[in-house]
Amino acid sequence: MAKRNAIYAQSGGVTAVINATACGVIETARRHRSQIGKVYAGRDGIIGVLTEDLIDTSKETPAAIRALRHTPAGAFGSCRYKLKGLEENRAQYERLIAVFKAHNVGYFFYNGGNDSADTTWKVSQISEKLGYPVNCIGIPKTVDNDLVGTDNCPGFGSVAKYVATGMLETGYDVASMARTSTKVFVLEVMGRNAGWITAACGLAAQREGDAPHILLFPEIAFDAEKFLARVEAVVKEHGFCTVAVSEGLKDANGKLMLESGLSDAFGHAQLGGVAPVIAAMVRKRFGYRCHWAVADYLQRAARHIASKTDVQQAYAVGKAAVELAIKGRNAVMPVIVRKSDRPYKWAIGVAELKDIANREKTLPRDFMTDDCFHISAKGRRYLAPLIQGEDPPPFKNGLPVYVRLKNVAVKKKLKEAFSL
Amino acid sequence: MAKRNAIYAQSGGVTAVINATACGVIETARRHRSQIGKVYAGRDGIIGVLTEDLIDTSKETPAAIRALRHTPAGAFGSCRYKLKGLEENRAQYERLIAVFKAHNVGYFFYNGGNDSADTTWKVSQISEKLGYPVNCIGIPKTVDNDLVGTDNCPGFGSVAKYVATGMLETGYDVASMARTSTKVFVLEVMGRNAGWITAACGLAAQREGDAPHILLFPEIAFDAEKFLARVEAVVKEHGFCTVAVSEGLKDANGKLMLESGLSDAFGHAQLGGVAPVIAAMVRKRFGYRCHWAVADYLQRAARHIASKTDVQQAYAVGKAAVELAIKGRNAVMPVIVRKSDRPYKWAIGVAELKDIANREKTLPRDFMTDDCFHISAKGRRYLAPLIQGEDPPPFKNGLPVYVRLKNVAVKKKLKEAFSL
Repeated sequence: MAKRNAIYAQSGGVTAVINATACGVIETARRHRSQIGKVYAGRDGIIGVLTEDLIDTSKETPAAIRALRHTPAGAFGSCRYKLKGLEENRAQYERLIAVFKAHNVGYFFYNGGNDSADTTWKVSQISEKLGYPVNCIGIPKTVDNDLVGTDNCPGFGSVAKYVATGMLETGYDVASMARTSTKVFVLEVMGRNAGWITAACGLAAQREGDAPHILLFPEIAFDAEKFLARVEAVVKEHGFCTVAVSEGLKDANGKLMLESGLSDAFGHAQLGGVAPVIAAMVRKRFGYRCHWAVADYLQRAARHIASKTDVQQAYAVGKAAVELAIKGRNAVMPVIVRKSDRPYKWAIGVAELKDIANREKTLPRDFMTDDCFHISAKGRRYLAPLIQGEDPPPFKNGLPVYVRLKNVAVKKKLKEAFSL
Repeated sequence: MAKRNAIYAQSGGVTAVINATACGVIETARRHRSQIGKVYAGRDGIIGVLTEDLIDTSKETPAAIRALRHTPAGAFGSCRYKLKGLEENRAQYERLIAVFKAHNVGYFFYNGGNDSADTTWKVSQISEKLGYPVNCIGIPKTVDNDLVGTDNCPGFGSVAKYVATGMLETGYDVASMARTSTKVFVLEVMGRNAGWITAACGLAAQREGDAPHILLFPEIAFDAEKFLARVEAVVKEHGFCTVAVSEGLKDANGKLMLESGLSDAFGHAQLGGVAPVIAAMVRKRFGYRCHWAVADYLQRAARHIASKTDVQQAYAVGKAAVELAIKGRNAVMPVIVRKSDRPYKWAIGVAELKDIANREKTLPRDFMTDDCFHISAKGRRYLAPLIQGEDPPPFKNGLPVYVRLKNVAVKKKLKEAFSL
C-alpha cells in the first residue's frame, strides 16, 4: 500500500505547550517519511477537517516547525466544536471519512481533552465500519489536568508554574505593604469542575505563613462563614491573607459563586468573575482593603514561564502518537506514567481511548488538607515535579519571539461543501 | 566629624525592582565605609522612621543584599502614608529629625514617587532649619512612570515588559480560537491618571493586525460609540479584537468607568474592575463571546519577567543616590537621562527635588495615534528600549528564589513613642 498521509487537529482551549505537541507530531512524522506522507492540519481544528480546509505542514521550514516548541496557543487554530453521537449525526463522521479518503489519510491525530478522546474513539469505530480503516490516536492536552488514564496532562504544568509564580510574587507584594494598604488579595484561576490549577497555587507556600493562605476548590462547596473566619484568623496572625480561588467555585446548592454577585448597574448583564465576589464579601465583613486579579487567558498562554517538564512531556506525547500510529495502533492515547516522585521519573505509556472518553478526574480529597483550605503533603508531592525546570522562548527587542506559520491551504478535492 | 549613618526607606506601591535600588544603595554604601556608617532601613517605610522602628541592614550578608537585586516587592516594607504639610503637622518632621539625631543619621534616602519627592524635599528644609543638616536624596520609583524630571521611572520598564508579553501571548491565544470561541479579550492594567502602562501593551503589536488592537487611555475620555464601532471593525477585519484598558479610564464627565458598572446582587458593594464593564458593553451590543483579565498586583510583582534595562536603572539610581550624598548633595534626585533612542543610551543625571515634587507626567498626546486608540511611532520609540533585555531570577524547584531578609531591629534610643 502506498504510504498514507496524516491529519493532525487541535481541539478545545489552547495551552502554552499544545504547539510543542504539534512539533513532536510533525518532526517525528518527518523522520518517518517512508511510512507517513504529508502531515495535514485541520484549520481551526476539526472544523477544518469537516470543511476540507486543510493546512499543508510540509510547506513549513524545519526552523518554523522547531519554533512551535516554544510558541503558545494553537498554530493551526483550534475550536470548541463537539461532534454529536454517531446516531445523532452520522453525517459528520461520514464526512470525516470522506475527507480522509479524498486526501489518502491513514492517520488521525486529535489533540485535546475528554471530548476529543471521545470523538477520536468514535472516528476509529466508524472508519472501520465504513471500510476505510484509519489509525486514530488521541493526544492529551488540557490545562485542567482532568483526563483519566494519564498521570497528568500536557498544558497543566505550565499553567501551574505560572499561577504558583504569580502567587509567590504577589505574596511578597502584599506582605510588604499590608500594614497600611491591601490586607487581602484574591487571585482567580481557571478550573470549572477540577481544582488542579488552584491546587498548584498552593506550591508557592513553602514555609509556614507563606502565601497563598487559603485555596478555594470547586470540589468543595463554599462555606462563607468558615472562609471568613479563616481570613480573619490569617490576617490576625500574619498581617495579611492571600487567596486563590477556582472560577468554578460553587455554593452548597451547586450554584456558581461567580453568578451570585455580579451584575451591571442596570442589573442585567452577567459580568463573570468570582474573585471580585469573594473580595467584596471580605471587605464588607471586615472592612479590610482588598485587591483581586483574574488571570484568565494570561495563565494558559504564558509560554514565557512554561514548565520545562511540561514542554518535554507535550513534545513526547506528540512523538509517541506518531510512533504508535506507524506501529499500527488504533483508538489509543499516549499518556504520561509516573515512575517515581523524588527524583521525578516519568515515561510514556498507552491507554485505550474508550477508557478515557468523557470522564473527568477531579482533585482527590486526600490532596487537600483536612480543612480543605490548602494542599496536603500528598498533593504537593504530586504537583511539585510538574512545574520543574525553565524553558524560556527566545526574546528579541524585549519580547518573546513566537512563530506564525504560513498555513498554506491544501487544494480541495471534494465537490460537496459541508455546512457545520 | 565622625562618619554618619544613613536611613533608607521605601515608599508607596512596590515594584519588581525597588529592591534592586535598595541593593544599589546598600552595596554602594558598603563600598564607602569611611564616609557612611550603617545603613538603617525604615520598617514599613517612613512609618518605621517616625516610630523609630529601624532595621539594621549591616546584619545582612553580602549574598542576601545581592539577592535583593532579583527580589520583587519591598524587602523592608513600604507604606501608603503621606506626611502632611510643614504647617499642618510640624511634629512629624521634628520627630524625623529627632530620630535622625538619636541614630547619628546624616543621610536620608527616600525611594518613591511624587509624594515622596515632596516629603524628601520638606525634610531637607526642616533639617536645616532645626540646625541638624541631613543630606536628603530622593530616589525615583513608580510603575506609573509619571515622575517629571526623569526620562522614565524604575519599576515601569518591568511592568511594561510584563503587560506587553501578556498581550502578545493572549493575542496568540484568542486568534487561534476566535472562529468558535472568544472574539473579544480585554486586559485591565494599572494607571489611574497616566496611560503609560496601557501604552506599553501596544508594544506587543509589531505587525498590522497584531494584538492589542485597541488601547483605552485614562487621558482620553471614553467614547462608548466610537469604541464599539472600532471593536466591530476590528472583528470584521481580523476575526477577533483585543483591548488593553487603564484602570483609570473615565467617561466624558470624568467619572471612573469602573464605578459605572459593577455592583453586587444587592446593589451595594463596589467591586471594582473596568475590564468587566468594557467586556459586558461589547457583549451586550454585539453578542460576541468576551473574556477579560485583571492583572492587578500580578503585573507589578512580576520579577520573573523583569526588564534587564529596568533592573540596571533601578540599581544605578540607588548607587547614584549614595554617591550624590557623600558628595554633599542635598534635596536632589538621581534621574535617568536618555542619550539616544537607537541604539538606546542612557546616563544618570541629577534633578532638584523641588522641581519634581507633587507633579505628574501623563502620556503625551503625540505618543498616541490620531484616533487615540493606539501608540504612535513616537510613543513606540520612547517605550521600546525600556523593556529590553531579560534578567530572570534564579529558580529552584520550579519557582523563583526570592530572598527574605532577617530585618533585625535597631535598639530604640528615644524615650518618647510616636503615634501616627
